[in-house]
Amino acid sequence: MRTLYHHPVHSLSRIARVMLAEKGIPFDSVIEKPWERRTDFLKLNPAGEVPVLVEEDGTVVAGGLAVLEYLEEAYPDVVLLPREVAHRAEVRRLVDWFAYKFAREVTENLVGEKLIKRLSGQGHPVPQAIRAGLANIHYHLDYIAFLSERRPWLAGSTFTLADIAAATELSCLDYIDNVPWDKHPEAKDWYARIKSRPSFRALLADNIAGCPPSKHYADLDF
Amino acid sequence: MRTLYHHPVHSLSRIARVMLAEKGIPFDSVIEKPWERRTDFLKLNPAGEVPVLVEEDGTVVAGGLAVLEYLEEAYPDVVLLPREVAHRAEVRRLVDWFAYKFAREVTENLVGEKLIKRLSGQGHPVPQAIRAGLANIHYHLDYIAFLSERRPWLAGSTFTLADIAAATELSCLDYIDNVPWDKHPEAKDWYARIKSRPSFRALLADNIAGCPPSKHYADLDF
Repeated sequence: MRTLYHHPVHSLSRIARVMLAEKGIPFDSVIEKPWERRTDFLKLNPAGEVPVLVEEDGTVVAGGLAVLEYLEEAYPDVVLLPREVAHRAEVRRLVDWFAYKFAREVTENLVGEKLIKRLSGQGHPVPQAIRAGLANIHYHLDYIAFLSERRPWLAGSTFTLADIAAATELSCLDYIDNVPWDKHPEAKDWYARIKSRPSFRALLADNIAGCPPSKHYADLDF
Repeated sequence: MRTLYHHPVHSLSRIARVMLAEKGIPFDSVIEKPWERRTDFLKLNPAGEVPVLVEEDGTVVAGGLAVLEYLEEAYPDVVLLPREVAHRAEVRRLVDWFAYKFAREVTENLVGEKLIKRLSGQGHPVPQAIRAGLANIHYHLDYIAFLSERRPWLAGSTFTLADIAAATELSCLDYIDNVPWDKHPEAKDWYARIKSRPSFRALLADNIAGCPPSKHYADLDF
């Protein structure tokens, strides 16, 4: 069986989990705490980052978006990155937006400061960073509203990797109850559609010892 | 004519320029200072980041690696991302390593602190960040040596996007004379091979007003 090394509140790990579920590809799950810098894990990925996929034949796939692109190329039956070149570019633009820009401006400032620092025991939350994250999230939720008013899904007419990237980022923030859904009904409607997909179920069952999720985190009627 | 909006010492912009040159695709060059947040540029890319490619038919391509993946898909005659799935994954793993990990651990701490802050007038260099960048670069140059001792090029037997990503990152640091080449002869040998490629010429001609490059920056026998 193939194995995915991942962490429950790491967004790129969550994207990989949802992609595997959407594609119906079974995998063994290993929760990796990258801050522990475990020797055997560093042998798999010298960058020390999750997610890492190890295929049954021993092929090791690591490196952020590289894992996602690999999953799409190795398991193409369920299409999450459409075939047409300009459409692919639009999906990837939004994946970059959420997996990097949103992550830097929001997720790292909130999940990073409040949860990862606690789990890893590395430092204390910086109030200035938390304030920045709480301020920045509105602009991104407005952008989701802007896109979803114009298109059925974020990158166009079909559900794609762009929706997965945005929804997994938000799901990490929802875990710590930091998404102001009441102020952003359009973004909430879009997220509700993704939250109810079977591929999202495993994420909604995540429960980190000592750091349980917010009350409504797994609730489909939130 | 297509147009590339880029900045001379921005690594992903440099990757796009080298890719276009390797593929023999002509383009108009517009130097964009993303920190100015120019309204017309934000209309092209609301993320406000370079590089952005605008095709003759008006197609706008933006979003970090999305631009690079687009160039490979739209202009496939010269192959920079090989065809085989596991090989592609290895190239992308290294692109992620250099364009994100190296950028975060080295380039942002040195080019970001010393040059971009000066050009943009946003803040003063933080000595702690510069010390971190100067310390971190050795580990990455050792990794280039490790790879190039085992393979003709970083990701395998052919020149790929992985070589371009690593070399453009280093070229930004070389611009400000922050690569300790004397301590890393293997990495220097590998870089010298890329520096002499015709696709690298335009980068070596870069000269930012008020911030000229290091003496050996354009020297092929450095």
